[in-house]
Amino acid sequence: MILTVTLNTALDITYRVDALIPHGSHRVHEVVERPGGKGVNVARVLSALGQECIVTGFAGGAVGAVVRQLLAPLTVQDALVPIAGSTRRTIAVVDGASGDTTQLNEPGPTITAEEWASFLRAYGVLLHHANAVALCGSLPQGVHVGAYAELIRRAHAAQVPVLLDTSGEPLRRGIAARPDLVKPNLDELAQLTGSREPLRATREARRRGAHTVVTSLGAAGLLAATGQGVWHASPPAPVKGNPTGAGDSVVAALLAGLVEGVAWPERLAHAVALSAATVLAPTAGEFDRTGYETLLPLVTVTEQEATA
Amino acid sequence: MILTVTLNTALDITYRVDALIPHGSHRVHEVVERPGGKGVNVARVLSALGQECIVTGFAGGAVGAVVRQLLAPLTVQDALVPIAGSTRRTIAVVDGASGDTTQLNEPGPTITAEEWASFLRAYGVLLHHANAVALCGSLPQGVHVGAYAELIRRAHAAQVPVLLDTSGEPLRRGIAARPDLVKPNLDELAQLTGSREPLRATREARRRGAHTVVTSLGAAGLLAATGQGVWHASPPAPVKGNPTGAGDSVVAALLAGLVEGVAWPERLAHAVALSAATVLAPTAGEFDRTGYETLLPLVTVTEQEATA
Repeated sequence: MILTVTLNTALDITYRVDALIPHGSHRVHEVVERPGGKGVNVARVLSALGQECIVTGFAGGAVGAVVRQLLAPLTVQDALVPIAGSTRRTIAVVDGASGDTTQLNEPGPTITAEEWASFLRAYGVLLHHANAVALCGSLPQGVHVGAYAELIRRAHAAQVPVLLDTSGEPLRRGIAARPDLVKPNLDELAQLTGSREPLRATREARRRGAHTVVTSLGAAGLLAATGQGVWHASPPAPVKGNPTGAGDSVVAALLAGLVEGVAWPERLAHAVALSAATVLAPTAGEFDRTGYETLLPLVTVTEQEATA
Repeated sequence: MILTVTLNTALDITYRVDALIPHGSHRVHEVVERPGGKGVNVARVLSALGQECIVTGFAGGAVGAVVRQLLAPLTVQDALVPIAGSTRRTIAVVDGASGDTTQLNEPGPTITAEEWASFLRAYGVLLHHANAVALCGSLPQGVHVGAYAELIRRAHAAQVPVLLDTSGEPLRRGIAARPDLVKPNLDELAQLTGSREPLRATREARRRGAHTVVTSLGAAGLLAATGQGVWHASPPAPVKGNPTGAGDSVVAALLAGLVEGVAWPERLAHAVALSAATVLAPTAGEFDRTGYETLLPLVTVTEQEATA
């Protein structure tokens, strides 16, 4: 079983309008609601891949209740910890003609010390059932900036491999606690290492403590620095579509490959194909299964010079 | 007791952002939620004026539950009829610097024939306890366009005076059923009568069936065509602020004056002062009590020439 942690869960709402005009009044033509937050998205993809998944993190208030209600019919198991505050909403306003999206993100709840302690207890119990754990997304207010480092140490104590997908100071602190895997993009990596040169920055992130660093290069695929070597995996051609959720699909594929013990080149090929198939799917965060199967054999994985 | 009907209730959400940039990503600094829809706003103002109020209409889904939860601590009585669909949200995105507002309005639920029948039964019972009824706002999908005309006829059968505050075809059909009072603005009146000349259009609306027409002239006050005469009521000077909810305050003051049997000139003075005090208040839909009391004696009410 794979455990995903989303401390800052969300209700992701998508509005379709003709065109967003600042200071105008808009009739929303379509409203779509989905349970969100990176770890929830990862779990949904994993579950579509046939992996057993449990989501934990926080949920509270009327919005939190809707998130749990929307999780219920999925095959993902809900182990979210209740809080007094209200789970945040994110609103994506999609222009009908262009498909361009305007994003509004609520600040979300503040977690109390007691709620954090409850979460740690739940996390400890869940780790006993986990083959791998993914720590995903931003930290809510009230949670200390070293929270991911703490969760990584507890996972290691329980001998569960841990993937970290976050940014900024929580990433910097988390990496120092030696996670098995981090999956930054080039911006997150530049913020961490000061370098935008992919190979140099990826290796530097590894030097800072992560056993493996898989850097997302966007349309150019993935660059992985592992204990067994360095690989670049790229799709046959850049795909057009909605990139929302592509990073979560990479995390899902890497986790599936980890628990199945798949070799790195194959693991990366799956991650690139799944990510491209997510961009292809019309709904954000879903993946196109036919696209996934078609792209998989076309992904190129090349080993990089060890001396670079 | 005053009954207000809001067939299209809403959860009104206000987001404060730095500045809304189309196709950008925005951190929302502040989230405020209020139960909304015109009749709910009218009831809240009436209740602040010390009037007993019952709200009815429809509420459903998780959003409807939040609307009811937010109504619970108010002195307004909740007689909303449950529906299978989900109550709509409206989102007002307020730019921090300018205070300009971008509005996003969800389409709202579709009412089934059974739900409409349930509402009619509840409405019939509530009319027995009402001194006046206000029919406010747009019609939800699934409700026939002559719905307000039907509700006006039932109020008359129960000998309860009825105020109608809507627009477009529901207003046209409603007026033909002879409501005691309608409160259009100049746009709504022009759509109904084809004239933008206030006195002519107000009289024409009266000729179409309304016993009294009180036309909102915005900052210029109110123009009332009644069975006892025609009056123009205007504030001492235009007030600056947020006009959201000013029209609902006019409706509230007119209803309070109606149930208290106040003479028309005084009733109109109250409506103009309350409306201006609503514009003055920093929160949309609230009114500034000191402003109300200060402005009341300064409102000018002049009788218009009967031959005009």
